[in-house]
Amino acid sequence: MAAPRIDSPANPRVKAWARLRDARERRAARLFLAEGEHLAQEALLARAPIEALVVEDGREFPWLRVPAGVEVVPASERVLKALCETPSPQGIVAVCRLPDAAAPAPGPGRWLLLDGVQDPGNVGSLVRTAHAAGLDGVLLGEGCADAWSPKALRAAQGSTFHLPVATAGLAEWLAGAGASGVEGLATVAAGDGAIDYREARPGAAGWAVVVGSEARGVSDAVLGACVRRLHIPLPGGAESLGAAVAGALVVFRLAEARDGDRGRS
Amino acid sequence: MAAPRIDSPANPRVKAWARLRDARERRAARLFLAEGEHLAQEALLARAPIEALVVEDGREFPWLRVPAGVEVVPASERVLKALCETPSPQGIVAVCRLPDAAAPAPGPGRWLLLDGVQDPGNVGSLVRTAHAAGLDGVLLGEGCADAWSPKALRAAQGSTFHLPVATAGLAEWLAGAGASGVEGLATVAAGDGAIDYREARPGAAGWAVVVGSEARGVSDAVLGACVRRLHIPLPGGAESLGAAVAGALVVFRLAEARDGDRGRS
Repeated sequence: MAAPRIDSPANPRVKAWARLRDARERRAARLFLAEGEHLAQEALLARAPIEALVVEDGREFPWLRVPAGVEVVPASERVLKALCETPSPQGIVAVCRLPDAAAPAPGPGRWLLLDGVQDPGNVGSLVRTAHAAGLDGVLLGEGCADAWSPKALRAAQGSTFHLPVATAGLAEWLAGAGASGVEGLATVAAGDGAIDYREARPGAAGWAVVVGSEARGVSDAVLGACVRRLHIPLPGGAESLGAAVAGALVVFRLAEARDGDRGRS
Repeated sequence: MAAPRIDSPANPRVKAWARLRDARERRAARLFLAEGEHLAQEALLARAPIEALVVEDGREFPWLRVPAGVEVVPASERVLKALCETPSPQGIVAVCRLPDAAAPAPGPGRWLLLDGVQDPGNVGSLVRTAHAAGLDGVLLGEGCADAWSPKALRAAQGSTFHLPVATAGLAEWLAGAGASGVEGLATVAAGDGAIDYREARPGAAGWAVVVGSEARGVSDAVLGACVRRLHIPLPGGAESLGAAVAGALVVFRLAEARDGDRGRS
């Protein structure tokens, strides 16, 4: 489905898409932009709902198979520059529909919950970690950076398309999940009743790891909804690890514990 | 040791310091800037060689104990803004001497080697990880982002002051370290003879984990100097993890293996 070529960044459709760099505009329009070859490819691979593919004049993408119903919009380099945050856009942008705003219902599984993680690079990296470790979804609580910003999408390297990512009230969600046996596990600094993250042995219903804000950690309300606090021993004397690294260490360790159980059964 | 107050960003000393935001200038002058309260504090705690502390008019830092021989330069907010990359500098900048350019001699220990890691945030995060895990040093090979740029220092959160960080020819260094029994371990994608990182059992002399470039991985020359290749199984289907996360998973796992052996002995 080919649309007329667009030359000017002042074109009304281009202006509307360019506004999607703002989080509020994304939420209002229920759309976001996947910039560049890798993200557009991941969106197609994951069969994400794509509204349009904006493709620069003269650029060829041999991997590109346009699904039925997806509009292809040929455009000038200036248009691509107007849409993209990266200084040298790679000739393609996918205009995608935001996934369903409703969070997955609380229930058995392995979950990553982000409580006020403010840096978009950290949010994206944690989405990538959750996908890599095979988790069931990522829930973003209050105060988190938007997972569909260009920077967060870039850090997630396409993982955002491959598992459920949604906003949720974390304390309520944890209460619901706890009713089905899912253990809420907060990552915290040492002390205050925290156990070594390598000693956690959640039950068969699964777990929900909470990573807190870079500056303040997990909020009291969400801590209160967790059954256990985990810390990562730091023998070298550094005060702490970054949110993306700490989350990855805990998630991979817990995911492995279950894989190990499977292997033995 | 108090110096005259500086009001203007056009002051020659301020202009010379501001040039330290460029890597070549840092290498030529053998100086770098630690921006903000946290980094200045870490520099002092680690007894890093500080040439001057630039402090904004009217700002009080109750923790500040100025070591003998360190010059304190009172300055205007405009001067601080001219020196700092962050939009709202926190009223203090430490002008620090770059550590000795010579890398630690190859020998027994636990080391992290970065081979072409280009993103300063990744370099900083990996320095923080190495410090947190108690490693003996970080070596930066060709093509790495500079560890003393404002962005890398910020990501390292002060860890850069607490362990040796130096540039080195990695293949030669690994050959030298191998002679004393240190195992070079390259982190790579699955396949090609790589073993699960959790199965690595390096000997008592220690190990040197190599993290490769974000785009191309570990270079052939450095791969050739490693005795083993490690990969991280990704059950969820993501293609890869980011360099900072992959490096942290491998480093913490290997560090733990030795701590575990110690515990048992």
